[in-house]
Amino acid sequence: MTGNTHDVLAIGNAIVDIIAQAEDDFLVREGIVKGAMNLIDAERAEALYAAMGPAIETSGGSAGNTAAGIASFGGKVGYIGKVANDHLGEIFRHDIKAIGVDYDTEPLPEGVPTARSMIFVTPDGERSMNTYLGACIELGPSDIDTEKVKAAAITYFEGYLWDPAAAKDAIRQAASIAHEADRKVAMTLSDPFCVDRYRDEFLELMRSGAVDIVFANEVEAKSLYQTASLDSAVAAIREDCALSAITMSEKGSMIVTRERTGEVPAHPIDNLVDTTGAGDLYAAGFLYGLTHGRELDDCARLGGLAASEVIQHIGPRPQTSLADLAKQSGL
Amino acid sequence: MTGNTHDVLAIGNAIVDIIAQAEDDFLVREGIVKGAMNLIDAERAEALYAAMGPAIETSGGSAGNTAAGIASFGGKVGYIGKVANDHLGEIFRHDIKAIGVDYDTEPLPEGVPTARSMIFVTPDGERSMNTYLGACIELGPSDIDTEKVKAAAITYFEGYLWDPAAAKDAIRQAASIAHEADRKVAMTLSDPFCVDRYRDEFLELMRSGAVDIVFANEVEAKSLYQTASLDSAVAAIREDCALSAITMSEKGSMIVTRERTGEVPAHPIDNLVDTTGAGDLYAAGFLYGLTHGRELDDCARLGGLAASEVIQHIGPRPQTSLADLAKQSGL
Repeated sequence: MTGNTHDVLAIGNAIVDIIAQAEDDFLVREGIVKGAMNLIDAERAEALYAAMGPAIETSGGSAGNTAAGIASFGGKVGYIGKVANDHLGEIFRHDIKAIGVDYDTEPLPEGVPTARSMIFVTPDGERSMNTYLGACIELGPSDIDTEKVKAAAITYFEGYLWDPAAAKDAIRQAASIAHEADRKVAMTLSDPFCVDRYRDEFLELMRSGAVDIVFANEVEAKSLYQTASLDSAVAAIREDCALSAITMSEKGSMIVTRERTGEVPAHPIDNLVDTTGAGDLYAAGFLYGLTHGRELDDCARLGGLAASEVIQHIGPRPQTSLADLAKQSGL
Repeated sequence: MTGNTHDVLAIGNAIVDIIAQAEDDFLVREGIVKGAMNLIDAERAEALYAAMGPAIETSGGSAGNTAAGIASFGGKVGYIGKVANDHLGEIFRHDIKAIGVDYDTEPLPEGVPTARSMIFVTPDGERSMNTYLGACIELGPSDIDTEKVKAAAITYFEGYLWDPAAAKDAIRQAASIAHEADRKVAMTLSDPFCVDRYRDEFLELMRSGAVDIVFANEVEAKSLYQTASLDSAVAAIREDCALSAITMSEKGSMIVTRERTGEVPAHPIDNLVDTTGAGDLYAAGFLYGLTHGRELDDCARLGGLAASEVIQHIGPRPQTSLADLAKQSGL
């Protein structure tokens, strides 16, 4: 194992977020599942945009947000994800490179446009996403840069990648390359409904050892094992995966290894504005810590710190240097 | 004079803002005049975007922001401004219509793209704009809807419209139509450097009676009369225009008529985040008040309230209902 080109190589659906505020009634009227990632097609995307209030556009995508967060901590991070050759694609490319992420996935030359997610933020700060996958459906094994996977301490991917057809092959290939090079593989379960769609495959990834580290929130963890008991889910995930980090919103997060369960309280906040990116940024802090020799509890604290920054403003990526925040917080 | 279709018809450069944070050193290095609207060409726009940090995209344009603000107060408002048939144009159209503004200016079918302004927000909250006018240069007299001008209580335009070549003819025409229909015409001086470029023409607009109401901040007012004394500027503007509203940041605003000078304190804020849109939203509150039979001091208070909302978040348009805010503030 030679030196790392990247601490983390993140792979995900490359998405531009279109964010507006909305009342709960609007979600009900539009049949949007609150707090979830709702997959939509091009026609529905157009209709929903017409019904949407004034919005802001900003780069998103779960693993893209995590990559941006790691870069903001000062980590070395690469990203793989598919945009189209269009204006939203240009925005995505600009933003992720501007924050310091290495990104050179070939854009889709024609056909479908760059993916977008229409995100409605309700007065309680919860976000409800409506994602049109666009160019993401073309991400495949040929987009995986073998040398980058070999040279990254951790290859990280989002469970959402099971939605587009070809990406799971890309991920399985990347996981093999990583393990052959004695590297680690991490994933996030992404969304309780995503877990519902791909439960058996996600469990197989963990049980076969294709994945070493799993991120989940408590709803996703319970969904994975179809249980209402977090304790049961924790007991099961301990068997299935060497290291899991389970986020629990304002209750903090839990680290589960074969040997122990650790709990770390949430980082205090002044105002909850928009939860978009909370889990993504938790993963960013945790992975930054893990690749910088930090104890697991400190990894969880770094995750909580990053999440606390992103939920206090609109948008899924940090607006403040996380390296500075960590310094100020004595982390 | 029949009933008003619109309280205000706003005319301006239709622009999408691209907003990023930056340090003061960056402005110096890039030769950006701090706090000003810097006009740039397509080539410079590309180079500057490459140097820019991660950004958010959101609809802007001075008069567009004012129109959005009036709509947020619950006023009836129309907008005229030129976008291209492209993605940014679609964003602009969506956002202004979604907030309730009547907007149907024909987009430019081909040629130049929709205007964009790269805005750098420094740690002090000041914004420095870099505007590529794009499709705005094609706004001309044929875009002025005579019936809308006749049916609007106030036709409002931005001084920035003197930058594109054909727009000033459109404005002079609109002002004539408005006055023939016994309506009022208002303008903002927009920017001290803009005043510097078109001082004689702006003074002529006021002195000839083409404009009845002028909005300015203190720097613009001083620039108009090339004086360091605000008192001198106020004395001069009282002669030149029937009604002026002069904003003075945290010192509040001043209303100047032939008969009197009134001062209204600023609306208190918790955190200054981004001054983009402060003047535009002041004009929104003031014009909303004026077209709803409010006393001038209350118009100034409504302006201050709207400005206080917009400077406490990133982006130039309200994120909270100004009608609700006014109610909560007893206005």
